[in-house]
Amino acid sequence: MVAEKLRKIYQNSGADALFIECDFVRRYLTGFYSTDGYVILDGSGCKFVADPRYFEAAERQLRGSAVEVIEGSYALALELLQGKKTVGVPYPFTDVASFERLRKNFELIDCMPALREAMIFKTEEELSLIGRACDIAEEGFLQLLPAIREGMTENEVAALLEYNMRKLGASGTSFETIVAFGPNGSVPHHETGNTALKFGDAVLIDFGCKVEGYCSDITRTFLFGDDGKHGEFRKVYDAVLAAHDLVRETLVAGMTGKEGDAIAREHLKKFGLEKYFTHSLGHGIGLQIHEYPILSPRSEQKIEDGMVFSDEPGVYIAGELGIRIEDSMYMRDGRTHSFMSKTEKKLLVL
Amino acid sequence: MVAEKLRKIYQNSGADALFIECDFVRRYLTGFYSTDGYVILDGSGCKFVADPRYFEAAERQLRGSAVEVIEGSYALALELLQGKKTVGVPYPFTDVASFERLRKNFELIDCMPALREAMIFKTEEELSLIGRACDIAEEGFLQLLPAIREGMTENEVAALLEYNMRKLGASGTSFETIVAFGPNGSVPHHETGNTALKFGDAVLIDFGCKVEGYCSDITRTFLFGDDGKHGEFRKVYDAVLAAHDLVRETLVAGMTGKEGDAIAREHLKKFGLEKYFTHSLGHGIGLQIHEYPILSPRSEQKIEDGMVFSDEPGVYIAGELGIRIEDSMYMRDGRTHSFMSKTEKKLLVL
Repeated sequence: MVAEKLRKIYQNSGADALFIECDFVRRYLTGFYSTDGYVILDGSGCKFVADPRYFEAAERQLRGSAVEVIEGSYALALELLQGKKTVGVPYPFTDVASFERLRKNFELIDCMPALREAMIFKTEEELSLIGRACDIAEEGFLQLLPAIREGMTENEVAALLEYNMRKLGASGTSFETIVAFGPNGSVPHHETGNTALKFGDAVLIDFGCKVEGYCSDITRTFLFGDDGKHGEFRKVYDAVLAAHDLVRETLVAGMTGKEGDAIAREHLKKFGLEKYFTHSLGHGIGLQIHEYPILSPRSEQKIEDGMVFSDEPGVYIAGELGIRIEDSMYMRDGRTHSFMSKTEKKLLVL
Repeated sequence: MVAEKLRKIYQNSGADALFIECDFVRRYLTGFYSTDGYVILDGSGCKFVADPRYFEAAERQLRGSAVEVIEGSYALALELLQGKKTVGVPYPFTDVASFERLRKNFELIDCMPALREAMIFKTEEELSLIGRACDIAEEGFLQLLPAIREGMTENEVAALLEYNMRKLGASGTSFETIVAFGPNGSVPHHETGNTALKFGDAVLIDFGCKVEGYCSDITRTFLFGDDGKHGEFRKVYDAVLAAHDLVRETLVAGMTGKEGDAIAREHLKKFGLEKYFTHSLGHGIGLQIHEYPILSPRSEQKIEDGMVFSDEPGVYIAGELGIRIEDSMYMRDGRTHSFMSKTEKKLLVL
């Protein structure tokens, strides 16, 4: 299976060999995590060149796999490329310094399209790791709720949530946790700060964690007490939630990212809210928090079985309110399913 | 001051304009944090092109500064480069896809040397932010110690330490926290896992946090109870600590990274331990956890006033023990000073 996957990537790349220096691609190809090392993939198979810090552990973990582990450095990795004419490197994840170094000896081509084509379809094992990262995120959130108190800062809430996820087995967050109180929620990329929580505040939390490198992504918006001033908020919330649900219910395999995005956007339009939906509906999720497919008004990418993506419609009215509801989703048997089942999406009032 | 710094970087780059897409360099030049945007630096000044998500906040924060904020996208940023012939981009932090895009219209040169020359000398404000990140790391560690119990896993200890730092005001960790129990400590880049703590274990924790993007880096090694089998451990510990202290006491401005590294290495040699010191003595610290100067056996870089770097000698005997003692340091008035003052470096037995 792994050997098959590697062979396909190699063949699709059109290069004599692939040369990988980038962390997450190295992990994807070998299944082994390291901060350094080189992967060479060619017609004869896949070699991982590891330095003394990683060699022993890599050798142990990958024994009997499709990946051969060799102790060495950059110089040795280059030697293994000898005789190759075209070498594939992933352009978006190769820095120009490496590129210029390699270009002296080889004709370089971008192997990212071939990698992307493989990475966009998750294996059962990958789906299960993303599923665990989603479970932990939800469970961490559920453990957070009863601990939220008036006067806590956004930073404190983020700290506690991250602690919960870490204790539940996550290796870290999949991106910087966003916690936004009150009007801060209307800034889609609000930087979590020292704003203190007040009775009646809306709370938006966008977060996720990693399990063996694989990410989860989830957003919940709720009220910290109801001060009776949330009539408009509730109306918008219901519209956003309906848009979110509609995507899960009606996005089927073969539709494009554009069509997926339109499901939510058209629904919000009925309430005159589409002009406040200022970002795309979703993005792929895997070893990276943002990958393919993209669900945006311009995406022609077809959504197929095995793909994982976020469904995150949002409405932001500057200085007033911000509501985003997001699950990590996967396509299976032609239909969209959520990884999330533990947390409520009906408006929660703490 | 900022204007002066920007002008110098521009002049040293040798390019008609600098074009920056990379997060931490953008933050360095503007002082504003965003996940997207473009900075154009030329003879007429510094412009930050921000998309609608960031424009308002950037405009507010940078009003009256040396940086002009303009709302727009990549296309607008490119327009601002019109008429330029040579454009400087930081090669090690520019991906090939961006590089190829820009290369169609401009002659590109690497502006990283000019950036590095500026970034290696920290301003008082930068020193104060790194100092805060160091304070928080130490304080988080002190709050961790009384909570450590037999049976806790490495992951749980890491989770609690990270929570403490986050609560104390850090925005996150500066790298993945390393917690290693017992023989795991002999793997310099051990991946924190589910090993449970036993009485008599040595514990190695390498960690750090970020304050406004600036990093701290610290390692402590201690004993969780003394089972009476630590005679050799204590001897090695004292040698590593003496090597660490000797660097602080004798590394003076004008010495090279090589000479700094040799201070620790020569000391360990007296005990026959130098062959177990398998990495470099230290690295620069700033907006990145690994930057310049490098203190290694091959570094000809001079260490000067205003530079910040780690002092982290270590001894690793496979399967037996691993001891590393690390502070973040800075050079001032020609001498080396530690940012750390709250935590004990004498061998601690919990």
